[in-house]
Amino acid sequence: MDKILRIDVGAEGGPKATAGAMGEYAGFAGRALTSAIVSKEVPPLCHALGAENKLVIAPGMLSGTTGAMSGRISVGCKSPLTGGIKEANAGGQPSQVLARLGYGAIVLEGKPKGDDLYKVFINKDGVRIAADNSLKMLPNYDLVAKMKAEYGDKIACISIGPAGEMKMSAASIACTDMELRPTRHAGRGGVGAVMGSKGIKVIVLDDTGMQMRAPKDPEKFKEANKRFIEGLKKHPVTGQGLPAYGTNVLTNILNEVGGYPTYNFRQGRFDGAAKISGETQAETETKRGGLATHGCHRGCVIQCSGTYHDKDGHYLTKQPEYETVWAHGGNCGISDLDGIAMLDFLDDNYGLDTIEMGATIGVAMEAGLAKFGDVEAAIKLVHEVGKGTHLGRILGNGTAFTAKAFGVEHAPVVKGQAMPAYDPRAVQGVGVTYATSPMGADHTAGYAVAQNVLKVGGDVNALKPEGQVELSRNLQIATAAIDSTGMCLFIAFAVLDQPETFQALLDMLNAFYGLSLTGDGVTDLGKKVLSMERDFNARAGFTAQQDRLPRYFKMEKFAPHNVTFDVKDEDLDKVFNW
Amino acid sequence: MDKILRIDVGAEGGPKATAGAMGEYAGFAGRALTSAIVSKEVPPLCHALGAENKLVIAPGMLSGTTGAMSGRISVGCKSPLTGGIKEANAGGQPSQVLARLGYGAIVLEGKPKGDDLYKVFINKDGVRIAADNSLKMLPNYDLVAKMKAEYGDKIACISIGPAGEMKMSAASIACTDMELRPTRHAGRGGVGAVMGSKGIKVIVLDDTGMQMRAPKDPEKFKEANKRFIEGLKKHPVTGQGLPAYGTNVLTNILNEVGGYPTYNFRQGRFDGAAKISGETQAETETKRGGLATHGCHRGCVIQCSGTYHDKDGHYLTKQPEYETVWAHGGNCGISDLDGIAMLDFLDDNYGLDTIEMGATIGVAMEAGLAKFGDVEAAIKLVHEVGKGTHLGRILGNGTAFTAKAFGVEHAPVVKGQAMPAYDPRAVQGVGVTYATSPMGADHTAGYAVAQNVLKVGGDVNALKPEGQVELSRNLQIATAAIDSTGMCLFIAFAVLDQPETFQALLDMLNAFYGLSLTGDGVTDLGKKVLSMERDFNARAGFTAQQDRLPRYFKMEKFAPHNVTFDVKDEDLDKVFNW
Repeated sequence: MDKILRIDVGAEGGPKATAGAMGEYAGFAGRALTSAIVSKEVPPLCHALGAENKLVIAPGMLSGTTGAMSGRISVGCKSPLTGGIKEANAGGQPSQVLARLGYGAIVLEGKPKGDDLYKVFINKDGVRIAADNSLKMLPNYDLVAKMKAEYGDKIACISIGPAGEMKMSAASIACTDMELRPTRHAGRGGVGAVMGSKGIKVIVLDDTGMQMRAPKDPEKFKEANKRFIEGLKKHPVTGQGLPAYGTNVLTNILNEVGGYPTYNFRQGRFDGAAKISGETQAETETKRGGLATHGCHRGCVIQCSGTYHDKDGHYLTKQPEYETVWAHGGNCGISDLDGIAMLDFLDDNYGLDTIEMGATIGVAMEAGLAKFGDVEAAIKLVHEVGKGTHLGRILGNGTAFTAKAFGVEHAPVVKGQAMPAYDPRAVQGVGVTYATSPMGADHTAGYAVAQNVLKVGGDVNALKPEGQVELSRNLQIATAAIDSTGMCLFIAFAVLDQPETFQALLDMLNAFYGLSLTGDGVTDLGKKVLSMERDFNARAGFTAQQDRLPRYFKMEKFAPHNVTFDVKDEDLDKVFNW
Repeated sequence: MDKILRIDVGAEGGPKATAGAMGEYAGFAGRALTSAIVSKEVPPLCHALGAENKLVIAPGMLSGTTGAMSGRISVGCKSPLTGGIKEANAGGQPSQVLARLGYGAIVLEGKPKGDDLYKVFINKDGVRIAADNSLKMLPNYDLVAKMKAEYGDKIACISIGPAGEMKMSAASIACTDMELRPTRHAGRGGVGAVMGSKGIKVIVLDDTGMQMRAPKDPEKFKEANKRFIEGLKKHPVTGQGLPAYGTNVLTNILNEVGGYPTYNFRQGRFDGAAKISGETQAETETKRGGLATHGCHRGCVIQCSGTYHDKDGHYLTKQPEYETVWAHGGNCGISDLDGIAMLDFLDDNYGLDTIEMGATIGVAMEAGLAKFGDVEAAIKLVHEVGKGTHLGRILGNGTAFTAKAFGVEHAPVVKGQAMPAYDPRAVQGVGVTYATSPMGADHTAGYAVAQNVLKVGGDVNALKPEGQVELSRNLQIATAAIDSTGMCLFIAFAVLDQPETFQALLDMLNAFYGLSLTGDGVTDLGKKVLSMERDFNARAGFTAQQDRLPRYFKMEKFAPHNVTFDVKDEDLDKVFNW
């Protein structure tokens, strides 16, 4: 990870790759690196789909090592969805493989001269780029199968589906998992559209012949990693809840506390929740010969994923995440788990963010395009997107866009990005994160659900404004740092709750890099990342006025607790006062 | 004009009208009044189509008097197109009639409880509001015919077409002309969508039994008005050019100077310009029994309009304006004058801004939805909008929206609003206005074309940045004041060039209101209006970064002069330093 691979897609004769030293970016990885490059090199007022934007793909600090949970990859750019800076990250294999190939980042820059679509192949011998128009409009599963046939099964792929090629703002970037399936997505903010605008369909990585990245102090690293794993295994969330039921364990929990946004954020409980809960899902998976407990990348010890089979016992999709089950489920009034799994597959295949698409369909249902609860209609709508019909062009550009197209007032978005699966009125801490994160509405940017609902890492009353700003601030700082390590964010449950597990993480970083990082150092890194991101957004024209929820969250009461979002504007403006 | 009529469209049992005193708004009219009410009463972060937005319709200071040219009406709200404050104004009869009925403004506020569509009738006896769902989705011409059948031919109408009912961001508000045709539109910024969101289809005005508004000093007013008219008649633009050829006299002029945006702002000259010029248009009109010289409201002495007949000698539309002929013509590579007239008619009938629609079709052509120059395809696209198909939902929401739907980078917009018929690279003064006007790209907000190209009121080199900021500043100030008087903006040619005509205007205002306004007072009014508007926008989250042209205007050279827009950002930020 001592070099940056820049691919000038606008070079004469087709994209040209050049590897160079990390230079001023030395020491940065993951989100810290993507945000540093975007913030420094991308003019904030440029067109997100134009020559001046850059797509930066970066493994984390510990990716490619033997460290557990280090398989996250960050994707950064100016977002076509929000107009601000974006880091979306994903699991799967590419982070580890890219890191072992020695690249700190791949940067796609410039603008293609023609309409050709390219594939990029990177292995120990270097980089090969070739036009391949046979890939045009291939969905991700077919694309990956083709790459496997061409390059063998030791590869990992980073790719876009038709949505990315069509430059839709809900388009994701897919990363393959251990089974070489395109199931892990850098979903948010339309990063897939930016990859599409660069004319790159797929980056195929093969680390055959490359070694694990070596720590400065191998023994200390090994020992710290062991402690780290023990910590994850003993925590009830990372050691029991997530392995057994996946993220979808949250459905019953959020429904119970009345924070489960239902019917396009109209109420906080859904009658059909039990039918689509993690418990039901795990039981269904096991019964049909799928897996209820499975990892998305080698080195995962939490194993929050799984595989979902159809009624005939054939693979349909990976275990749909809580966010996906909610977005296509309760938010659309849908309680058909097989239908939701099909929607998950379609989103993965067309290359779409499941959160954005589910929220979009909720708005489309409010607009009268389909009835709430009609799963077949929802499936049809996603196919419209994949086919790029005119309706698909609307839906594929996301929730705010669809609301505008049909004159719908209730668009649950911040900075143009759809809210995830927690209503900000019933989980006010995450509401602060939605409002203020430089990313737009994003639960992962500062997951106050932990303290508001799960009572992990603290206990702050979810229904009251008190304490939420400080909570969100600290979480946003910690998250920005974790997103830079390559670590799965789910380690946070154990790290926030168990000081010794946090220390183990620090010890891993220090042993690997020969550093003497303390908790303060992690905090400093997080603040630095957030500051770069907020600076970019300010130069892109964002002010405190964009750090707000839509006004209806302040004005319309949310059942069952009949709450509004009560954190004051002036308090929101204090989130980044540190 | 001593009262404000507020209609609460969300009242129990249907919209309820209440007339009240002008109160704190006393002395304000036209744009000054709409911007004052919007700025004070509308929360800047509200949803433009929601309960908190207000639609304010206000005649100007001299509307309803015997003063020449005083027939402009201002329409203000938070714009669904730009997200900022909006004042769009129109000619036609309603301004005079509404003023004579004694109303300083009509304010539509609240949100309808149901789906009924309402008509409002106002005469000397008061206000009657009735649900009339037979009006749903009626185009403007049919609607007005129905109102005429119902209320007689002494009326003036303010109405929306299907586009407004569908809450599209390109939707206009139509005002009827002297022939009771819905041909004069408050076009820009989606004001029609806001009227649609209030559930009001049409406001029918009948001033039978009402008097002309009486000046404080009738003799002085009469004498000043006479001097004013003489000034307009002797100036070559208002006395000759506009009457003979209408605004479309500009086609040949802008084409000649290379500032005529052609093929979606790709070049500054259009091969087909002569075929669609004002000269050709006037000749065609006269030959077919239409009118080449005609006014849009009683009291107009410039008579820049006309009537356009089809090949069979039947009325097709009013004389299409330069902006319309350009938008649907050169900008789309179309040189078929009859086709352009049909597009003008369709826009008026569906209730659409011709500038926004023409620019939108230019982008759609760039996206490959139709070929540049294909007039039949362009007509079909406008029908899609009127029918509200999915494609129509895209196009009807304007240029930026359409560009985003189809991933087109070249969207000639500022603050989301399409640029009019002057390329900002070849007419840099109007480029400063596009960039900085609180309204979004709007030529009328500071018409530097006068000094850059026509050499009226000054002479500033169109191709250079020098002097443009000061020019635009002064024009924006003057325009904000003129837009408050109810005067047609075309008086500016004579007023800017001839001190005695400016003095005549001041004398009219002073004689009417018993004031002692000087030139400085007019300037103060203009500054006050702009300050209110910019304050609203700042509270809506706008910064200097939104006072910018899209970057491609700074980077891509524009033929034939091979110029870029060279006014520096830091100079743009000085426009409102006064």
